[in-house]
Amino acid sequence: MQKLIFTNEVARELSGLIAAANPHGVYVLADSNTVMLVWPYLAADCPALSDARLITVPAGDINKNLDSLSHIWSELQKLGANRHSMLINVGGGMITDIGGFAASTFKRGMRFINVPTTLLGAVDASVGGKTGINFGGLKNEIGAFREAEAVVISTAMFSSLPDSEMYSGYAEMIKHGLLDGEEALTALLAYNPCVHDFNCMLELLESSVGVKRRVVAEDPTEKGLRKSLNLGHTAGHAFESLAMEKGAPVPHGYAVAWGIVVELVLSHMHKGFSTALLRKIAGYVRDHYGVPSITCDDYPRLLELMHHDKKNLDDRINFTMLEAPGVVAIDSIAGEEDIKVALDIFRDLMSM
Amino acid sequence: MQKLIFTNEVARELSGLIAAANPHGVYVLADSNTVMLVWPYLAADCPALSDARLITVPAGDINKNLDSLSHIWSELQKLGANRHSMLINVGGGMITDIGGFAASTFKRGMRFINVPTTLLGAVDASVGGKTGINFGGLKNEIGAFREAEAVVISTAMFSSLPDSEMYSGYAEMIKHGLLDGEEALTALLAYNPCVHDFNCMLELLESSVGVKRRVVAEDPTEKGLRKSLNLGHTAGHAFESLAMEKGAPVPHGYAVAWGIVVELVLSHMHKGFSTALLRKIAGYVRDHYGVPSITCDDYPRLLELMHHDKKNLDDRINFTMLEAPGVVAIDSIAGEEDIKVALDIFRDLMSM
Repeated sequence: MQKLIFTNEVARELSGLIAAANPHGVYVLADSNTVMLVWPYLAADCPALSDARLITVPAGDINKNLDSLSHIWSELQKLGANRHSMLINVGGGMITDIGGFAASTFKRGMRFINVPTTLLGAVDASVGGKTGINFGGLKNEIGAFREAEAVVISTAMFSSLPDSEMYSGYAEMIKHGLLDGEEALTALLAYNPCVHDFNCMLELLESSVGVKRRVVAEDPTEKGLRKSLNLGHTAGHAFESLAMEKGAPVPHGYAVAWGIVVELVLSHMHKGFSTALLRKIAGYVRDHYGVPSITCDDYPRLLELMHHDKKNLDDRINFTMLEAPGVVAIDSIAGEEDIKVALDIFRDLMSM
Repeated sequence: MQKLIFTNEVARELSGLIAAANPHGVYVLADSNTVMLVWPYLAADCPALSDARLITVPAGDINKNLDSLSHIWSELQKLGANRHSMLINVGGGMITDIGGFAASTFKRGMRFINVPTTLLGAVDASVGGKTGINFGGLKNEIGAFREAEAVVISTAMFSSLPDSEMYSGYAEMIKHGLLDGEEALTALLAYNPCVHDFNCMLELLESSVGVKRRVVAEDPTEKGLRKSLNLGHTAGHAFESLAMEKGAPVPHGYAVAWGIVVELVLSHMHKGFSTALLRKIAGYVRDHYGVPSITCDDYPRLLELMHHDKKNLDDRINFTMLEAPGVVAIDSIAGEEDIKVALDIFRDLMSM
């Protein structure tokens, strides 16, 4: 079982982990951002990294590809890594995905530790063991399931992130709060992630990652419960794709935040989710994420995109709905007319 | 646990396996040889393969590389494979290694079945779950541990192989016989693999693969017992590399057969392995594998190559030795002078 460590003393924790693992050589993977913004501080504070060899790839999901993977393999080989070495991945989800896959396959597998430097990476990509690269125009087409030896999560890493990055990751935390229960949700809605209160955020994050960890542990092969993690994503992916098509892309987490509101409206209609709570969440989303630029003319395309996302055969679409925070109904069906009504109410709630 | 099926009715067994797996699409990987020599007969006899989509790569270990891997991934993608599809690898160790790795990583893992078409592939590459490609000039540098859903082994596959291929694979079987015990060894030395008695060979092969399977099951992480599979390979790799350096390469199995004799001489010197049996094995090897073209001038280079193979620090080299067939002493040490004496005796036994 991988170690999940929540700390604001990354260097100290890393030193302990490296000493305990006693690897034949330590290698660090960073991208063109984290190599400047994070690595110098980490290297200065962590004596265990003083002999580490650095490997870098260009930042951005577009570089999570075979060229970068091949480069990482080549560098590991040239720098003398072996199957008893250790790779430390310092970056967002792009770096932990590609670095985890490179380590899983170099010499048929060396150990790796993830140090996520984005909120989204910490909350989403650090549990579940999904590693990989994009290939042939498809996301995460090639990869492996392999957990890191340890994930070291520090909220101090996020202090230099732009607000939009913080909100984007926070949308996934709100989703986890909704799956967890009212108490967790209330704590999240009372906080603004851009305040950068390291300790408060660390506590919220630990509880949030715990939700995902429990769900994945109960359903590792994505047969049932794990579908609950899809909350907000059926409508969210449609918003994300539509924005892309219109040439005005939005961050993933923003689309998810809007998708959550739409799917809570459906939950209200089909499962009696509370109006008061729906209004409260919609208010938080409107205040921090703004509103998507859609009109009712966009509905047909949004419905098409939702259909495509789920590969459904008739006019009904599969959602994860909630009766209440913590009370999940996976595989809940809504027809197209219901979804159009939900989109109307969504636009109303967001005061469009 | 993967199914190991020994049969001379490959098409029927494959049909049953495919029907039981009920995959979303069947894909077949073959190389430029097996696509002509094996695939047409298999396809004609196996209705379950009538809709299979064919993917080919050029034959030869030199093509077990990233280009071929990327080609297989692309074809799987273009032909619409998904994580519920199945890949059938029809070929020697090159095809089962690269096909197994491609399947292990496509969409983070689809199922695969191996149909080895060489004796070496059947005896060596079908157990243990090692998949992978060569990279940066090093063999099997990138890969994963992942077992096939099933391995279907038929000796009828080998009828078109040249004699040198048969002897090359048979050397590994003799090694397994030595690790197993006197009875198994006697049966092997009484047979000539180029006679192509399908049923006799199938029985010998089943028993031989069983030896490897038991060893790997007892020591999956190569910490102890699995080192016994290295018998003959320390000296064998040195013969193989020397032949390569002299511009007159020999098949892997030939070098292993000679290496087995050298290491049995050392086993005689250090562990009391029987002289009579040593002479009998040396005779079989001399009659079927001929003799390597070495003189005592080659000893220094052979010793260097053995050192390099084991990365030992002083003048002692680590071997797997035998007290008798089935009585293994892993991590047995011999000094350079002993090895030179053993090489002298080896040349004597081989009547050089």
